[in-house]
Amino acid sequence: MLSSEDADQEMRAVEQVLASYNCYKLFAQQEYYLPRYKKWRSLSEYQKELIPWYGDYLEDLKRAIECNAAFLQEVVQFAQSMMGISSDVNEWPTPSRTDMEKTVSMISQVYREWSHESKNERSLATDRILKGLQTYEEQNVIGKDGIKILIPGAGTGRLMADLVIQGYYCESNEFSYHMLIMSMYILNGGLKEKQKEIYPFIHTFSHWKSRNDQLQSIFIPDFNIHEILAQNNRMAMSSGSFIDCYGSNDRIKASNTYSASPSMKLTRAQMESAFDVVITNFFIDTASNIIDYLYSISHVLIPGGIWINFGPLLYHFECDDQVEDTFEVDPFTGEKSNVHEDVPLKGLELTAEEILDVSTNKLHFKCLNEEFTIPSGYGRSLSQNTVPGYMCNYWVLQNNLVKE
Amino acid sequence: MLSSEDADQEMRAVEQVLASYNCYKLFAQQEYYLPRYKKWRSLSEYQKELIPWYGDYLEDLKRAIECNAAFLQEVVQFAQSMMGISSDVNEWPTPSRTDMEKTVSMISQVYREWSHESKNERSLATDRILKGLQTYEEQNVIGKDGIKILIPGAGTGRLMADLVIQGYYCESNEFSYHMLIMSMYILNGGLKEKQKEIYPFIHTFSHWKSRNDQLQSIFIPDFNIHEILAQNNRMAMSSGSFIDCYGSNDRIKASNTYSASPSMKLTRAQMESAFDVVITNFFIDTASNIIDYLYSISHVLIPGGIWINFGPLLYHFECDDQVEDTFEVDPFTGEKSNVHEDVPLKGLELTAEEILDVSTNKLHFKCLNEEFTIPSGYGRSLSQNTVPGYMCNYWVLQNNLVKE
Repeated sequence: MLSSEDADQEMRAVEQVLASYNCYKLFAQQEYYLPRYKKWRSLSEYQKELIPWYGDYLEDLKRAIECNAAFLQEVVQFAQSMMGISSDVNEWPTPSRTDMEKTVSMISQVYREWSHESKNERSLATDRILKGLQTYEEQNVIGKDGIKILIPGAGTGRLMADLVIQGYYCESNEFSYHMLIMSMYILNGGLKEKQKEIYPFIHTFSHWKSRNDQLQSIFIPDFNIHEILAQNNRMAMSSGSFIDCYGSNDRIKASNTYSASPSMKLTRAQMESAFDVVITNFFIDTASNIIDYLYSISHVLIPGGIWINFGPLLYHFECDDQVEDTFEVDPFTGEKSNVHEDVPLKGLELTAEEILDVSTNKLHFKCLNEEFTIPSGYGRSLSQNTVPGYMCNYWVLQNNLVKE
Repeated sequence: MLSSEDADQEMRAVEQVLASYNCYKLFAQQEYYLPRYKKWRSLSEYQKELIPWYGDYLEDLKRAIECNAAFLQEVVQFAQSMMGISSDVNEWPTPSRTDMEKTVSMISQVYREWSHESKNERSLATDRILKGLQTYEEQNVIGKDGIKILIPGAGTGRLMADLVIQGYYCESNEFSYHMLIMSMYILNGGLKEKQKEIYPFIHTFSHWKSRNDQLQSIFIPDFNIHEILAQNNRMAMSSGSFIDCYGSNDRIKASNTYSASPSMKLTRAQMESAFDVVITNFFIDTASNIIDYLYSISHVLIPGGIWINFGPLLYHFECDDQVEDTFEVDPFTGEKSNVHEDVPLKGLELTAEEILDVSTNKLHFKCLNEEFTIPSGYGRSLSQNTVPGYMCNYWVLQNNLVKE
């Protein structure tokens, strides 16, 4: 249970993210539109005449920004009403530049998860995952009825929606309020097919062949969410770090993303062997310590349960210079030990082979399937839509740990 | 001619780059090795036992950094001796973080331009360019004997070397001292095939399948440069911005990279119609104002001369927040006009179609050939060597401007 101080702090964090949604228009104008306007205005008359259409283009860009801003405003209003946030918008915390960049990337995220246009890209992961589930159900590796799936790093919830539609029970976990707020809106906002227009490509100015490609708008979602997902009870969403909410209570050091508080310990104890399947879809490379992730996956899975992984190994903290303190806490005395100050968030970027080695040779997983170098759309520029992005790995491991 | 003050300033800039080469070891240790060591050291004994090889890996990483550092030290010593730099190393300017990142990227650059291993990647551009040259020679579009080629943005000079070996006369232009210094060493350092060992992959921790791939060393160069290129007189190299050295004296506004000084005006006047061919290979997207580039290419080409372009449109300044002042200068009174302060370096990122439109409909170019969406190795992570990188464009335009 959160103390009222912690709850206050969380609410401020939510408000800060909502504020960053609200500031999108101003930020995008300053970041994308205004420099281009200034540059164009500075040209000589001769050069301006070479590109007579450029002024109109800048007006189109401005209107596209306004369209995205209107969409994000609706998300904010929905979140305020759903969460009962009545605080004065003007008193919300000022978003950071990182907040703003995340907000901009939400437009791409919505495009990638909820558009017709990105269906093929999504299918690369979803088809493999669904086929894997069906295969291991048929082989009775996992139980046929009432399979409980955990999806850490669920983003705005598309994979969960796809699995729920197929009849599975899914719990999603997500750390980012940017994602959680958008997810809440999309899943619960009563959206009909193609109801909302966004311009996902306007934030990229490189690699275009045609100007029209950059200015193309798309309509989301790609199906009637209101009709197809409403009123179902097979969907749950948790907020927080994966290891904090689902990790084991031993062998993970306390850090910024793993609390040694009694309430979190209780939560985590309840999560032991709580799921038949864990699906990590573009998730495991978000780890600051991937061994913590592996250990936590093993913790939440029932004996015999399976872990399905799809995604690249683009370690999110590879270039991050932040540090944190880590330590162990004696469960009885509360005393700290094995304290390390200023531990980098980067580091421990295991290769695909190393992850499989640790999992199968040290953590009692058994490899049922593995596939490497699968081309995906992820990681390429949005303007390069014929180009494969990062290569992905796919594997299915079975938890063979006999728990006492 | 440079004033002695300008010459001093240039020498300081060269020293700063040499200093950044010298600081590679310290920087790479702090940036790549040390955080990983700290992270590993902070693990619990239990987690350390899961990856018992990690300590040895860190030692390998350290040794690989030392090997790269030794290579860069040699480059510095060669440059000092070639340029007669006797100043005290300890009094060289302190390199910036950007300098250090450029130094790190030089290791990849050398790998990409001068290794056996990256031959296929290079051939995508070089084969097309050579075939283009041969085709238009055979068709008598360009003169058969003594063709003079200009290569702006020549990097460390590999394309120039390849063309010189084929018998062409080439002049290279490069703005970056990082590139120029490395280029001087490689082209003039008397290198024999596979004489030098470098570790080009150690600065990337994401996307690896196997640890050995990251720790692989390579040997450069891929041919005996000393024997094959020495003593030839078909090679020249200029230092400075392309538009400053080769641009027209009219219709380009003065800026940080285009001087209105009489000496540069004289240089540029001499460059009018000085080349039969301009080859831009991964270059045009370095423009802050691409129209200046187009206009300059037209300026240096003889009537009927051809411009061969290969590369993506990854505009280098797309995300750059720097600004500069631009203005026009009256050639007689020296008075400034059309002054714009704080003009963004970003902006004007024309699409491929727009570049061709301006070139052919406004600047008297005629399109002889065009090809889009050519997969290249450039732009992908070095750990993803089976993946295409950015899509490239290829075109050949003929300068049909009748000059008075």
